[in-house]
Amino acid sequence: MEIKEEMQQRIAKIEQALQSYLPKQEAFPPVIFEAMRYSLFAGGKRLRPILVLAACEAVGGQENEAMPFACALEMIHTYSLIHDDLPAMDNDDYRRGRLTSHKVYGEDMAILAGDGLLHHAMETMAAACYANPSQKSTGAMLAIARGAGINGMLTGQVVDVYMEGKPLDAQTLEFIHLHKTAAMIRGALEAGATVGGADAETIQKFGLAGEKIGMAFQILDDILDVTGTEEELGKPIHSDEKNEKTTYVTLYGITQSKEIAARLTEEACQIWDEMGESCRFLHALTAYLLQRTY
Amino acid sequence: MEIKEEMQQRIAKIEQALQSYLPKQEAFPPVIFEAMRYSLFAGGKRLRPILVLAACEAVGGQENEAMPFACALEMIHTYSLIHDDLPAMDNDDYRRGRLTSHKVYGEDMAILAGDGLLHHAMETMAAACYANPSQKSTGAMLAIARGAGINGMLTGQVVDVYMEGKPLDAQTLEFIHLHKTAAMIRGALEAGATVGGADAETIQKFGLAGEKIGMAFQILDDILDVTGTEEELGKPIHSDEKNEKTTYVTLYGITQSKEIAARLTEEACQIWDEMGESCRFLHALTAYLLQRTY
Repeated sequence: MEIKEEMQQRIAKIEQALQSYLPKQEAFPPVIFEAMRYSLFAGGKRLRPILVLAACEAVGGQENEAMPFACALEMIHTYSLIHDDLPAMDNDDYRRGRLTSHKVYGEDMAILAGDGLLHHAMETMAAACYANPSQKSTGAMLAIARGAGINGMLTGQVVDVYMEGKPLDAQTLEFIHLHKTAAMIRGALEAGATVGGADAETIQKFGLAGEKIGMAFQILDDILDVTGTEEELGKPIHSDEKNEKTTYVTLYGITQSKEIAARLTEEACQIWDEMGESCRFLHALTAYLLQRTY
Repeated sequence: MEIKEEMQQRIAKIEQALQSYLPKQEAFPPVIFEAMRYSLFAGGKRLRPILVLAACEAVGGQENEAMPFACALEMIHTYSLIHDDLPAMDNDDYRRGRLTSHKVYGEDMAILAGDGLLHHAMETMAAACYANPSQKSTGAMLAIARGAGINGMLTGQVVDVYMEGKPLDAQTLEFIHLHKTAAMIRGALEAGATVGGADAETIQKFGLAGEKIGMAFQILDDILDVTGTEEELGKPIHSDEKNEKTTYVTLYGITQSKEIAARLTEEACQIWDEMGESCRFLHALTAYLLQRTY
């Protein structure tokens, strides 16, 4: 099966599960559930939940056991986008080709919609752990909480905001990318492998591959902001230049940035190769992500 | 022992535990950890974590097993205050006699400090569940997640913000108080009883008592905003009147509001009486909370 087709099938499953985990829009008060749904069902690529499910599958785990963690991770990712877009943060008007949450619902409801998605991710994972308390379920929850938390994504966002308008050195930029983007992708693969029942050594390898994929993914984002079109990306291009942001492109240029991303992708694929046939889809997906810029 | 003295002892233990769960201020980037600490160590009453520990103790559980959940609940409570105070929400400059987070650290860092505390509550609870996976630990986490989440505190805040400036009927005001305040106090007592190993029926009774205590507590807050002094409360008085907020005082008057709070307190104390000697401290604490207005 073509990788795109395979991804579409998985996305369909995830969309259905996300629907089931979120309260109906008629729930009281409607505005918050509408705002949460507006951002959660905005045509995201669902990369992170796909990675959770794929890692679980690769180590022989059950998809239904991984699904709550996959959906929770997507809720956390969506919350982070809503808060990143706020006027006090990046002050972005568009995301995925649509108005951002605070432009539609106001700043107060956008903050609360983000909070609500983070709360609901916590509740969804806690419910899954309570239904089946084990080191597998609680370990998956911990991997996601760590990837997202104050030693992960949140810290990356803090440094990003804190350094706004200042030129960054290579080390600080790597810190931001590693935390803001790679930590959650690392968490996705760790969580999937953990809930799937992998041993500690295997979980660690999945995590390492996740970190490399996450870095490559973010470097490609830096590149696409320069080389992509607004239609392809669903958001304004050249936003980094406009915001005077230091990126891999400004530090290393496009050619070298592509080389770094290709090398990281290659290293991740080597990990999948070592794991063998069970990681075939993860290998194909990793290679596919790199192709976005070519 | 006097109830005040007993509470001070418990507060000291909780302060120490909170310190141990939070990264040192030197951690990178310092600003976010400083902002999280600024609000978390601002002289709060620690009522919610005290209730978690007291419930656990009352059903014969171990304090050290309850402590991560007690501290997580206080982190969630603190995050909710930081976000409630934001310019896009209540736009308050003072809290507990000190400048609010966004006045000290800016709006962006205040949003992130709140997010960070919610993330860290999730991580603290997930780590406790992973260290000891059981229905007790995961059930405690679920009780807290539910109390805080989109069918609990968060929804109360949403309706509060959404109805701002509009007169409320009794039903809507009760909805807000039940969700914004009582749900977390209910969650505290449920979580403590759950991690302490209580059976389902007992947990339910603790939850019901928590709901009554939470409602009484919030009605007293409404009263104190009219009858208290700024020194006693550490925040401006008459803020509800200034913000044209419907409260129990505006709907029922001071005398009847006090009667309602006293009745709720009495009902909670009856639950503790039925439970017997093990709930002595909870009984004393419940009665003490009511005395704040007399």
